[in-house]
Amino acid sequence: MGGDSAPDMVVEGADIALRRFPDTGFLFFGDEARLAPLVAARPAVAAASAIRHAPDAISGDAKPSVALRAGRSSSMRLAIDAVRAGEADGVVSAGNTGALMAMAKFVLKTLATIDRPAIASFFPTLRGESVMLDLGANVDCTADNLVQFAVMGDAFARTVLGVVQPTIGILNVGSEDLKGHDEVRAAAAALRAGPLAPQFHGFVEGNDITAGTTDVVVTDGFTGNVALKTAEGTARLYSEFLRGAFRSSLSAKLGYLFARNALAKVRERLDPRRYNGAMFLGLNGVVVKSHGGTDALGFANAICVAADMVANGINDRIRDDLGKVVPAVALAAPGDAGG
Amino acid sequence: MGGDSAPDMVVEGADIALRRFPDTGFLFFGDEARLAPLVAARPAVAAASAIRHAPDAISGDAKPSVALRAGRSSSMRLAIDAVRAGEADGVVSAGNTGALMAMAKFVLKTLATIDRPAIASFFPTLRGESVMLDLGANVDCTADNLVQFAVMGDAFARTVLGVVQPTIGILNVGSEDLKGHDEVRAAAAALRAGPLAPQFHGFVEGNDITAGTTDVVVTDGFTGNVALKTAEGTARLYSEFLRGAFRSSLSAKLGYLFARNALAKVRERLDPRRYNGAMFLGLNGVVVKSHGGTDALGFANAICVAADMVANGINDRIRDDLGKVVPAVALAAPGDAGG
Repeated sequence: MGGDSAPDMVVEGADIALRRFPDTGFLFFGDEARLAPLVAARPAVAAASAIRHAPDAISGDAKPSVALRAGRSSSMRLAIDAVRAGEADGVVSAGNTGALMAMAKFVLKTLATIDRPAIASFFPTLRGESVMLDLGANVDCTADNLVQFAVMGDAFARTVLGVVQPTIGILNVGSEDLKGHDEVRAAAAALRAGPLAPQFHGFVEGNDITAGTTDVVVTDGFTGNVALKTAEGTARLYSEFLRGAFRSSLSAKLGYLFARNALAKVRERLDPRRYNGAMFLGLNGVVVKSHGGTDALGFANAICVAADMVANGINDRIRDDLGKVVPAVALAAPGDAGG
Repeated sequence: MGGDSAPDMVVEGADIALRRFPDTGFLFFGDEARLAPLVAARPAVAAASAIRHAPDAISGDAKPSVALRAGRSSSMRLAIDAVRAGEADGVVSAGNTGALMAMAKFVLKTLATIDRPAIASFFPTLRGESVMLDLGANVDCTADNLVQFAVMGDAFARTVLGVVQPTIGILNVGSEDLKGHDEVRAAAAALRAGPLAPQFHGFVEGNDITAGTTDVVVTDGFTGNVALKTAEGTARLYSEFLRGAFRSSLSAKLGYLFARNALAKVRERLDPRRYNGAMFLGLNGVVVKSHGGTDALGFANAICVAADMVANGINDRIRDDLGKVVPAVALAAPGDAGG
């Protein structure tokens, strides 16, 4: 029931995703009276799904703590409960991010040695695709959190992106060792001394994200969220400037007509819907958050991300790698981490 | 002597800047043997300048503390000394940022009630131009620092950008009051309760930067640096995708030819050289940092930023506004600021 165009886009998104993953089955949680006709109108979806009535829905502005307490019969909560009960392999929601994270943590619990789950997403780069985390689950992060994000990002890049030996970078304000605050420096020291050392590139900067300097970009949720949204805003600015330019003269208008198909491909490569589906990593279960403002195509992509994670056994891979989690504090000498 | 193509681009940049600000005089600090022929080759520059020999230069990787201690006869230090002595109205350097900030703070001192200077820069938005600070001077910021940045950004937007009543936003991971960490929430509470309240928009997100939601974007130096470089990287990614698209078919190549002039204008609007020249705000003197990798045109823009700041008496305006600095801690109730 979450998202601006729910539940319509959810059911329509399932229809699109079903064409790409024909073996998928769906459990729709929400207002049965609204869901039933939507599902019935799509025979392929109807054949592959069941509706579970949920009397409540979490509002977009509900505080996570309130959602957790008062939302026991919400569509979001019942869907997560189904994952814990083994009735579903994963959950996809376009609802309130904070509530989804709080409920998922409470119901599914985090994996052993992972203190806090992180939100991860792919993004386009000059070299292909990379993954960045955290994108907003943890506003304040310790060095240990960052090290754990590196382990989860590595497992994700190997399984879902198919990179054999992913490179890992920690986002910072410079590439030199002495740059940045205590947390990034202690995390870097821990990664350099631990089993991920051969894959650890060191610090990367904001421009390295889209350059694709590393396959995994590790950062705290505050910085990651700002970076992601800044990138989206910059792409929009560029698009708007281009739109204006192509209208600025007859010659430019003609140019647009000739280049139209090629430009459509650029737009498609940078389409936020293509990268819709932020993964909650570090939980006992697959949880994917769709952007609330997306449409059916974007929601379908989020479903496909979840299906990919399930198919690739992402959590088993992370579980196998939990031994790579090394405590940062013990490794960083006080002198290195200071000031 | 700082920057990849110094001192050539510095002297050539002065030549370009001189055409825009014909009353400017220059003091070049550096290796006289290298500077003299460069200046002599440009009669207009030669007529408006003097060379001051500096036996040393600060290297790009020198630690600020070392530069401060050992760099007393460096070109950077002597140029800053000239500002303090009143021989120059401002200093422009493409050298080591950390060293420049450390020396400028030590020699020029900060303005009263400003604890820490900030690095600011304009950037293009859908609505024109805005200013963001801090972009990297202060990796860790208190709520008080953020409030002071807001006051300086406001003075800057009024004087140099010419906005009558600039709007101010604090960069955060969401627009709701409860979002973000303690520092941004305490700073927001202080701005809401202080004399800048009518101009304070509240929290803005990464995509608001280029949307131009506010004239001034306030953030800590870690987040600001990452956001700025992420925006640059995203613009480069978009440009590369476009370049590839225009080569992908005969029709697209033709389209490029027709749209060429219009596209050149987009490139120009987003050209990082156009926004070159980061301002150090909060010091008793005008200090502008040019990107080290820029060319003469970019360096000329940095000079023009400094000339603009001097012409508009930016520091007098900031001094007038120091009364708007209100302590954040006293205003933020413990409950509001708590985790």
